[in-house]
Amino acid sequence: MTADMEIICVGNELLIGKTLNTNAQWLSKQATLLGVVVKRVTVVSDDVAEIAAATQEALKRKPQFIITTGGLGPTFDDKTLEGVAKALNRKLEVNPEALSMVKEKYEAYATELHKQTVELTQPRIKMATLPEKTQPIRNPVGTAPAVQARIDGTTLIVLPGVPKEMEAIFEESVAPMLKQASGNKVFHERSIYADNIMESGLAPLIDKVMQDNAGVYVKSHPKGEENKPHIEIHLSTMVTDAEKPEEKLQKAITQLSSLIEKAGGKVFTNENRT
Amino acid sequence: MTADMEIICVGNELLIGKTLNTNAQWLSKQATLLGVVVKRVTVVSDDVAEIAAATQEALKRKPQFIITTGGLGPTFDDKTLEGVAKALNRKLEVNPEALSMVKEKYEAYATELHKQTVELTQPRIKMATLPEKTQPIRNPVGTAPAVQARIDGTTLIVLPGVPKEMEAIFEESVAPMLKQASGNKVFHERSIYADNIMESGLAPLIDKVMQDNAGVYVKSHPKGEENKPHIEIHLSTMVTDAEKPEEKLQKAITQLSSLIEKAGGKVFTNENRT
Repeated sequence: MTADMEIICVGNELLIGKTLNTNAQWLSKQATLLGVVVKRVTVVSDDVAEIAAATQEALKRKPQFIITTGGLGPTFDDKTLEGVAKALNRKLEVNPEALSMVKEKYEAYATELHKQTVELTQPRIKMATLPEKTQPIRNPVGTAPAVQARIDGTTLIVLPGVPKEMEAIFEESVAPMLKQASGNKVFHERSIYADNIMESGLAPLIDKVMQDNAGVYVKSHPKGEENKPHIEIHLSTMVTDAEKPEEKLQKAITQLSSLIEKAGGKVFTNENRT
Repeated sequence: MTADMEIICVGNELLIGKTLNTNAQWLSKQATLLGVVVKRVTVVSDDVAEIAAATQEALKRKPQFIITTGGLGPTFDDKTLEGVAKALNRKLEVNPEALSMVKEKYEAYATELHKQTVELTQPRIKMATLPEKTQPIRNPVGTAPAVQARIDGTTLIVLPGVPKEMEAIFEESVAPMLKQASGNKVFHERSIYADNIMESGLAPLIDKVMQDNAGVYVKSHPKGEENKPHIEIHLSTMVTDAEKPEEKLQKAITQLSSLIEKAGGKVFTNENRT
């Protein structure tokens, strides 16, 4: 059984094209490298109903993990926890463990800023206000704790959107969970590059190689144009080390390279045709 | 009434973190600038059932536009049209208009490549095999035609994933539709930057400015850390020119800057604090 995951990204800045969704790529890559299959990424706005709907829809598909990013901060438009609470039909309440995490941060900030105290205002308490029956996760580099909950077979993890914070929490607390769930499967990938063969001419050769090499996925990515073809061919497999992934990939590459050359194409091992 | 849109991106390369989803950002930005609100982005794998499910779910939410990107080429894993056909419960059939578009391309390629002919193989005919009752859209820079269909109140537009092709088709054939639908609304935005005020301290000031400036949306984006704050504050509005968007934004900026300075913060008009 393969462990699977969905990602939900929250933020108007993604939907107006102001911000490139590097968080989705980073999370997808890390999960894949840890042997977890990312099935879907959903991006919604800073809107409670939208966040709740996306969360409920993802829960219905029963992935092993759902990771959300964004909308955990102190401002009015940080609405992810409200959306998640609505999705789970749970109340929001100040979580004592989260509150002590937030308090500790502001005490440290006060010291650093040479102030006697930094008051625990409503926007600051908001970061410790979680849906009932969820647990805070330590944020090693920022203020807002992340949150986790178990809903039937799904582990829901709510991360902040600031990349540095999201990445630090993922590495400290989330990666170990994914690794355990994936059961030692690891993602292996290689690319070769082909010139002088159109993608439409390559198509039947890829079909053949995928038929002959079970477990190896082959996908062409045109980098040139159909009539001036320069095509990246990406080969990947997600298996345990016992299944000899590098040998599997090499066997597929050898066969594919030979088929391409027979068809009049040229094969390179890197993008710059060397 | 505001015109709204959903984007569906198809491609395993997005879900394994190999490719950064620049298409979603580009489309979101163009749609926003044309006055159309992007409500959701969904990324799914090269899988017929996944593509069909995402399309059906989007259709149920009844946006004015759904734009898909990716999965239109000649290879086995280009499955978007099969997924859309399944979502619409329509058969796939060779579309004569699309076939003549594809034929014309290969005739031109044959001339350029000094060949007598480039055969219309099955992978090439696949690019002209569309769901029933849909129309091809000319691809000015690549081979695979885009596709459009009207389903109840929604215009569904199926674009290729190669950025150059997607952008060219969007500009030639899609942008005019969006522009007409948005009824002259245009997106206006400005950013200011604040130091020496924590995001949690800024929160109530943003609340006040949004209350006093109807139609202006204000969102803070922390660029530093909570205790060494450097925050981008992004102000935006989507209105017709008659509603004087620049004046609206300037009024909100003036008020917000004054509130930040009263609270001990410093305001800059650009990210480099000049």
